[in-house]
Amino acid sequence: MRALVFDGTGLVARDVPRPVPSRDECLVRVRVAGICGTDLQLLDGYAGFRGIPGHEFVGEVVEAGSPELAGLVGRRVVGEINAGCGRCVWCEGGIREHCVDRTVLGIRGRDGAFAEYLVLPAANLHAVPDEVRDRAAVFVEPLAAACRVLEQVDVAGRPVAVLGDGRMGLLSGLVLRSAGARVTIVGHHAAKLDVGRRLGLHAIDAAEVDPARRFPVVVDATGNPSGLRIACALVQPRGTVVLKSTFHGDTAMATWPIVVDEITLVGSRCGPFEAALDLLQRRAIDVEPLIAEVFPLSRAEEAFALSRTALKVLIVPGTHPRA
Amino acid sequence: MRALVFDGTGLVARDVPRPVPSRDECLVRVRVAGICGTDLQLLDGYAGFRGIPGHEFVGEVVEAGSPELAGLVGRRVVGEINAGCGRCVWCEGGIREHCVDRTVLGIRGRDGAFAEYLVLPAANLHAVPDEVRDRAAVFVEPLAAACRVLEQVDVAGRPVAVLGDGRMGLLSGLVLRSAGARVTIVGHHAAKLDVGRRLGLHAIDAAEVDPARRFPVVVDATGNPSGLRIACALVQPRGTVVLKSTFHGDTAMATWPIVVDEITLVGSRCGPFEAALDLLQRRAIDVEPLIAEVFPLSRAEEAFALSRTALKVLIVPGTHPRA
Repeated sequence: MRALVFDGTGLVARDVPRPVPSRDECLVRVRVAGICGTDLQLLDGYAGFRGIPGHEFVGEVVEAGSPELAGLVGRRVVGEINAGCGRCVWCEGGIREHCVDRTVLGIRGRDGAFAEYLVLPAANLHAVPDEVRDRAAVFVEPLAAACRVLEQVDVAGRPVAVLGDGRMGLLSGLVLRSAGARVTIVGHHAAKLDVGRRLGLHAIDAAEVDPARRFPVVVDATGNPSGLRIACALVQPRGTVVLKSTFHGDTAMATWPIVVDEITLVGSRCGPFEAALDLLQRRAIDVEPLIAEVFPLSRAEEAFALSRTALKVLIVPGTHPRA
Repeated sequence: MRALVFDGTGLVARDVPRPVPSRDECLVRVRVAGICGTDLQLLDGYAGFRGIPGHEFVGEVVEAGSPELAGLVGRRVVGEINAGCGRCVWCEGGIREHCVDRTVLGIRGRDGAFAEYLVLPAANLHAVPDEVRDRAAVFVEPLAAACRVLEQVDVAGRPVAVLGDGRMGLLSGLVLRSAGARVTIVGHHAAKLDVGRRLGLHAIDAAEVDPARRFPVVVDATGNPSGLRIACALVQPRGTVVLKSTFHGDTAMATWPIVVDEITLVGSRCGPFEAALDLLQRRAIDVEPLIAEVFPLSRAEEAFALSRTALKVLIVPGTHPRA
């Protein structure tokens, strides 16, 4: 099959063997995959990943690893990205994303979605309702990550500043607003802020932020080291800063304001696929305006270049009909 | 009166005018004052303070700023260090420590306790029960700061690592243990760890920490930039790191582990004086073994030098009987 492979220096398209599902896994033909900020970070050295990246996808189950899973064949699915050992306290508690021995699709020890096929444990797969088309379903993974914030922080009725007008910033803004938060997106990119506004979000340039204004909740979705510093300056005493940004390298900052202002910082990663699918099925939020462009796998270089500046860039790995 | 004055370069003992209480304040004759890590940080440039430092004290009310406060004269007291504007939402909610316009005894815009007298609002003062002697009462302010953790994090029955075998580390360990936490003090100083052990705490050298062990709660009371990094490595996924350290300068660290492990960081500052006084009155904890030495104000230089390496160093500013 064709796949994009990262060898530690560059991303190259090449032919690799189609993966073979183990007994608890399914083989999934990837219909559409999305490029995420984390993919760009991986190429910059984050997590020391080698292999096929890509962890946002919608696909179709084409083969089951054991007869008990045969019922899944033919299903259109999205997939949770963490595959646990199945035996530790985290796995037993259903929280695979914190299993110490986990593999993570396209991020850690497991080939990902920028390929014609991938394998994932059947337990990770979620059927996609017919009314959610591929172009929306491919957002389920990052949308679930945005939904994770709702499990961690009470936002209903509260002013929330979301720092970052990129993919995660806008998705977080949409999800938080759907839960009743009074969201302000703070960004630097006129075109992306405009997409936010078209989706009904209050989106302003960072230069327009009232320097005296403080928010009870600030979400850092900037994807860069400045985000945490700005968030700590923008949050009110005893407020909460949610950290969504993962990036390679260090952040240098004074930590005494966290103590003096008694700020709570909450690290936030993967979230509930059910909640994300529900939002899409109910049409509670519209994610498709975030799509900048769709590329075939053969034009991955262009796709990755564009995704450094654009919102969501999608890749169609196979030759099946476009999303 | 005699006082220690910090002019931005050094701490000098000199004669200054006795402060005059405003209508809502009392004049307090300082019986004993304690040197805190924050005082040492102030001398290193933290918070840009100029004036008389010192914010841990026990004293005696000798004059009231208005007749309605006359009943306080003669009372032995300790004092909360934050004086608010009295009009903002924080002050109205009784949370003076987050008033934007606050002064802070010996830290921000208000002369402190390394002097024969100080003034504080009557609302900040707490009477000290007779059974709590000066040598214990002088610990109420840092002990209250340790009690603040109990308001923020549920520790009962849970393993808690306290990083730092200094004053705040040991006080935090004692307070957390009194609330049912299974405390491990982690430090670098054999003599201080021994004090912890004499107080019944499980106290180990950092080199003895099992590298595979993870704690649900870690308290950083190291007072230096390494603390947060170590805390994030020692806490379990979805665990809580409590930040107690304020120090001058930046910390450089990778923030992605906070996100990937979904760590919650909680800044923690001043705490409830009632709870601290109650612990001392009930003799639930014994703080006096932390006292390294007691100096008169005239030997402040020695006192400050010692406090950089010893546990609690006390200063008796006046000529009244020693604590």
